[in-house]
Amino acid sequence: MKEVMAFIRMNKVNQTKEALNTAGFPSVTCRKVLGRGKKKVEYSVALLPESHQEAAKEAPILAETISEEHRLIPKRFLTLVVRDDEVERAIDAIMAVNSTGNPGDGKIFILPIAEAYRVRTGETGEEAI
Amino acid sequence: MKEVMAFIRMNKVNQTKEALNTAGFPSVTCRKVLGRGKKKVEYSVALLPESHQEAAKEAPILAETISEEHRLIPKRFLTLVVRDDEVERAIDAIMAVNSTGNPGDGKIFILPIAEAYRVRTGETGEEAI
Amino acid sequence: MKEVMAFIRMNKVNQTKEALNTAGFPSVTCRKVLGRGKKKVEYSVALLPESHQEAAKEAPILAETISEEHRLIPKRFLTLVVRDDEVERAIDAIMAVNSTGNPGDGKIFILPIAEAYRVRTGETGEEAI
Repeated sequence: MKEVMAFIRMNKVNQTKEALNTAGFPSVTCRKVLGRGKKKVEYSVALLPESHQEAAKEAPILAETISEEHRLIPKRFLTLVVRDDEVERAIDAIMAVNSTGNPGDGKIFILPIAEAYRVRTGETGEEAI
Repeated sequence: MKEVMAFIRMNKVNQTKEALNTAGFPSVTCRKVLGRGKKKVEYSVALLPESHQEAAKEAPILAETISEEHRLIPKRFLTLVVRDDEVERAIDAIMAVNSTGNPGDGKIFILPIAEAYRVRTGETGEEAI
Repeated sequence: MKEVMAFIRMNKVNQTKEALNTAGFPSVTCRKVLGRGKKKVEYSVALLPESHQEAAKEAPILAETISEEHRLIPKRFLTLVVRDDEVERAIDAIMAVNSTGNPGDGKIFILPIAEAYRVRTGETGEEAI
């Protein structure tokens, strides 16, 4: 079993869920995340507008909010757990609707799953996913 | 070491935290997620009320919100990291309070952890968890 | 490839992102989580103020909110995916700015990544991260 973790654009969630459903993967979990790609950025407080610098130094939460608003991009993080022989099909379904050719299309990571349990029945392994 | 990831009902968080605490697992992280189970669903914009269809086409964020509200269920996602020989005890504690016999009771996945570090002390391995 | 998962203090996000950027890791994802450390806690509804006990029994969502407010601490959860030979450098960068010597400095977990894909180009493996 593998966990498929896809970081995708916010406005691609519906198409991706539909594509996964069509490909035979109705089970999916969606989370809101903030992401940053390869582009190098500067985080110095000195780069904030002067009016915000003092506040940012004194209030870490404000500083974080300012920083996140300006530098991190809201993304959606979809995960699903599939059998080993289904990984490629899931990847294909996600790639097909998310490849626009522009930076920010997202990334997919595959993680090994050691075991799975369905809480209701106690089933384990591939029966449980 | 293993990471235990449990997707459970929103209203089972307290009982689960209590059960894990009693079983010797005080450390736990909780996140809000939206999930969808095995039941097949349709995602066509055409299925939205007519009044929402145009808006959904023009505004992906609105479309996502409509879709998430109607089709994804808020769940809680608890994670904890345990020693290999503690996995079964953690599973048992989670199953005991989350098995209601109804669909939606949730799932548990076990992931391998390659290494762990406690930031304050620099401890690694099982000392750190 | 490995996923580096760091649970850190909310007010350390900016410094950590800056440190990772300086160390050559511009790509990072940030999520809000609620966490609980090693300190044992009691979850009995009986411990709530009397005025809240009835409400907590009747309304699981309220009970969860009360409980989370009182007992779980908002943390930030940073993740990045790096090459095997970069893990130590990423850990060092995170530890350097997050070690204050106080409980709550956080933890770092390393997970194996089986495969990675860049959605835009279809690149896989280390090319994709």
